Parts: sequence; structure tokens; C-alpha cells
Amino acid sequence: MDPTTHRPTLDDIHAAAARIAPHAQLTPVLRSRSLDALAGCELHFKCENLQRVGAFKFRGAVNAVFSLSDEEAARGVVTQSSGNHGAAVALACRLRGIPATVVVPHNAPRIKLAAIHAFGARIVPCEVNQAARDAATAQVLAETGGRLIHPFNDARVIAGQGTATLELLHHAPGLDTLIAPVSGGGLLSGTALAAHGIESGIRVLGAEPEGARDAHDSLAAGERITGRVADTVCDGLRAELGPLTFRILREHVEDILLAGEAEIIAAMRLVWDRLKLVIEPSAAVPLATILKNPERFRGRRVGVILSGGNVDLDALPALFARAG
Amino acid sequence: MDPTTHRPTLDDIHAAAARIAPHAQLTPVLRSRSLDALAGCELHFKCENLQRVGAFKFRGAVNAVFSLSDEEAARGVVTQSSGNHGAAVALACRLRGIPATVVVPHNAPRIKLAAIHAFGARIVPCEVNQAARDAATAQVLAETGGRLIHPFNDARVIAGQGTATLELLHHAPGLDTLIAPVSGGGLLSGTALAAHGIESGIRVLGAEPEGARDAHDSLAAGERITGRVADTVCDGLRAELGPLTFRILREHVEDILLAGEAEIIAAMRLVWDRLKLVIEPSAAVPLATILKNPERFRGRRVGVILSGGNVDLDALPALFARAG
Repeated sequence: MDPTTHRPTLDDIHAAAARIAPHAQLTPVLRSRSLDALAGCELHFKCENLQRVGAFKFRGAVNAVFSLSDEEAARGVVTQSSGNHGAAVALACRLRGIPATVVVPHNAPRIKLAAIHAFGARIVPCEVNQAARDAATAQVLAETGGRLIHPFNDARVIAGQGTATLELLHHAPGLDTLIAPVSGGGLLSGTALAAHGIESGIRVLGAEPEGARDAHDSLAAGERITGRVADTVCDGLRAELGPLTFRILREHVEDILLAGEAEIIAAMRLVWDRLKLVIEPSAAVPLATILKNPERFRGRRVGVILSGGNVDLDALPALFARAG
Repeated sequence: MDPTTHRPTLDDIHAAAARIAPHAQLTPVLRSRSLDALAGCELHFKCENLQRVGAFKFRGAVNAVFSLSDEEAARGVVTQSSGNHGAAVALACRLRGIPATVVVPHNAPRIKLAAIHAFGARIVPCEVNQAARDAATAQVLAETGGRLIHPFNDARVIAGQGTATLELLHHAPGLDTLIAPVSGGGLLSGTALAAHGIESGIRVLGAEPEGARDAHDSLAAGERITGRVADTVCDGLRAELGPLTFRILREHVEDILLAGEAEIIAAMRLVWDRLKLVIEPSAAVPLATILKNPERFRGRRVGVILSGGNVDLDALPALFARAG
């Protein structure tokens, strides 16, 4: 199968769950009475900030890296990432004992670069836009003969991300709504495919910053919009949908809700305060959209993917100041 | 039995576990490979920051409040607290439907006062020293005819706090060392009694800020030292041992380790960074002492009670600045 066009099945996601089980964390699902009261619905938070490397990205990376044949794996893995996927691929490759190269935009946060470096991967810096990322990635692939593990437009990665939803629905059966942040769409695709594989009636929503609303606009326009420059504090949500994730989201996602920067930071702070969890701004976008659109969630049983917790604590005062 | 002199048995702690089960959270136990590597031992963190009201205190408060006869409960409950115990008693009384009054030192943090107020308790402010707390408490007791639930020198409270250790040892059997912060000694007493009730060979240690080292000095002197004014950022650790907790700790605790303010804040930040958990400074003292005394923990399997997560996020920049 071609991983850039294959649409993962529920069987693929179950296989991914078995493949990653020796390496990944079974993350807890936490609740908060005060957040439920604030939102007017039941919120079940899947804590992927407590996943290894501090983000759901580890699931997809491990599934992809351990899906390679020994022959494929031997020449190493190449990827592009604004951070968490890069760290996840770096660690997955270290666990398999193969080399990793990560193409990283030069404005990626220090904390995420440090993680990639710590896991022993080679870092290749590039410009911020998608075309520059793709060009640098192609060059490294040509040099090394390695295998590409795209951060989201890859069936193995999508299946891996879907395992978080398998666990969530196992822990909290009967959820009627799931919501996850959307950037390139790997997490949201995996979430939707896992959910609808189990129960076709579950409503799946995406959450996106206003300043990076390409997924929202792409679904509204019925075609993939590319080439914009994202403007958001959510450093994990600056990518664009890929052809595969666009097709999956079109079929499986009811809507993509938007939130502004101050709303996102306020929601992040609420999670810190009420759930006592450190999450990064990207992970707060779903809660921000829930609080902004209470009529769409009232009385619902909602699963929320807290996608990651890699935030630079030195940058906190500046972040909090954005919440006004 | 007189709760101020009775030494809880393992049966008392099991009874407490059954009594609080309908109300308290079964909190997760989390680990971090990077913290294990840093400490040179296995660390199993019992996440009482994820307990209701954000602290282990809810366990003891619920056990005490639900131990009262209907007749006793009718006149309400009175307590004194620098914060978390007050909020815990306030919520426990609300759950039982009886009135609560909390005597609070005037320098208690805003976030903790707000919680007590939100749970519907009456707040009576007093001076910071223990004598002033006791006098104000006695006055409220005389006025209301209510029952005192002391924050630590109370067998029902100690038994409740011990339930966290029951859960921890059930989740992670074979731990050879337990460490908890010590202030009035309720948590550490409950920890020690539960641990030694299950396995007499478990080593139990306390952790205390240098600026509030009365428990350390009391055990060293063989008599309870009182009347000092604590000087520490750990607002949960400014109380002194009571007669009951002093007796229990003398018999069950091997040592009390000390950490300075900068070490405590650095440890707090490590937990935020690596475990992605919001903990308050008081909860970071055990990790600070572990990192300061690696030779005492090398190769051990250590249970660490993360006591609470109620920190004022607005105060973070000032807190972090103390870590230097």
C-alpha cells in the first residue's frame, strides 16, 4: 500500500495499537466538575500531554517507524516537523536503533528543538513555509536514501494517532462527540476513523486557531487551500492539510470550530488551573471552541484530545499576557 | 475513641478508604524516564494534585466529616487551615449538607481562600502563628457548639490521608521507600501507618523546607519544638507537628530531609516540565530532597506523594525567579 493515499481502516488502527503498546503510554482520561459546569456538558480529557515526548505524535511516529521492514529501516528515516513529530520520530528511531533526520522550520520553539536533539536525531533547519519544508525534505531524502515519515499525510501515522481514540472510547464508552485540534489533520483523521469505525453516529469536530484556519476554509470551500502563512501562538498548528487528510476530514468531520488567540490562552490557563495539567497552547484550542460555542455541546458527552504539553515555561508570562 | 490521641490502625485506614470511596478520586500514579535518570532511582508519583480540591487533604476531611454521627454533624464543623484543608473540609461539609467554619491565617494565598469560599464555608481570619490560630478556633467552637476537625492532629484525618498510600502500594507493589512532605504531619503519619501496616520494612521519609524545619528538629531533639515562625514559599508547610503526629513520626519515620527554597522551586519546575503536572511548591519538596541526596535513593523504588496543585498562576514569574 502507498501510505500517502491509503485510508486507514479500524483494523489498521487496532494493528497500530498492538504495535505501539510496548513503547507508548496508556494515558489517563481526566475530568473536572468545575470545567463541566462551565461548559454545560461532560468533558472527558484524553491526556496526550502525558504521552512520551509530551504529545500524541509519539503514537503515529512509533507505528510508522516500526512498520518499516528491516531493509527499509536500515537507511534511516527523514521527516519534517514544527517540533513534536520531530521529537517523536527521533525517539521512535532511537528505540528501533536507526538514524533519523528532522527538517525543522527555524522559528520552532527551543524546547521542541532540544527534545529532538536529545533523542539523537540530526536537525536540518529550513524556512517556515510549506514549500521550503518540502524542498529541504526532498533533498535530505535524496542524500540519505532514507524513508519519509510525513507528519500527517501518511496512513501509518494517522492509524497511530487513532489509537488515542480507541483508548478514550474504551475508557469512556458512550461519548457522543469527539473534538481534537487540527493542523495537518493527522490527529483529527485518526480520531475520526477510530470513532466511526467503532460507532458511526459519533460526532467528530475539529478545532483550529483563527490565525491558521486553512482546514476550516478548505472544508468550507470543498478544496484544499494551501500557501497561507499561519499566524498563531499555537506552534503545533501551523501546517496545512495534506491530500489524504483532506479527503478523510471531508467525509468524517462535521465541522471545524475556530478560536482566537486570547480565547486559546485563557482555555490553556483553565486547564492548568482546574485539571492541574500542563498543556501547550495547541492543546487548548478544543476547549476554547467548546466554551465559545456552548449551544453546540450542551448536555453532550464530549471526548477532548489534549494533544500535548510541551510549552516553554520561560515564555509563560508572555503567553498569559495574551489572554488579556 | 479520642481522635486527638488514637493512633490509626491499618483497619482504620481501610475503613477510611471505604468511607471516602464515593467522594474521592482514585488518583493516577505517573512516572518519568527522564526524572528517573536524573534521580538515579525509580520514582512513582502519586498524583494528589489531581485529587478533588487539588490536594490530598480532601481524603482526611471527607473521612472525618463522614465519621461524625448525625447528631454531632448537625451543629457543623470548625477547622483551622492555611488553605487546602479548609477547602477540603468546606467541600466535605457541603457534600454532607452541614455548615463549616474555617479559621484562616490572613496571609493565606488568594487561590486557596477563593476555594474555601466557593464551597460555601464561613471564613474567620486570624494571625499567622499557631497560638492565634488555636485561640480563634476555640472561640468559634464555643460560639457554634460545632465539632473540631483539626487539620492533622486527628486520627480520622490521618487515616484518611493514609488512603493515598494504600492506593499507591496497590498500584506499585514492591516500593521500598516512601517520601511525603511534612508540615503538621498528618500526611506523613498516614503514609507511614499505611506503609508499615502493609509491609514493615518500607523506609518512610519526610521532606521539609529548611525555612520550616521544626519537624526535622523535633525528631532530632526527641521533643516537639513549637513557636517558631516558618519562612518558606511552601504555604502548605507552615504548621507544626501535633502531639499525636509527633508520636507517630518518632516511631515510623527514618529521617526528615531538608531542601532550600531555590531547590524546591527548581524541583517544582522539573515536575511541570517532565511530568506535565501543575504542582504547588509544597508538593515539590520531596523531589527536591531526592535530587539533593542521591546517595540515599540510588537504585531504590521510591513512592513520592505529590501533595497538591493549588498554585496561583499569576504568581508564577515571581516563583520561578526564586529558583535563580
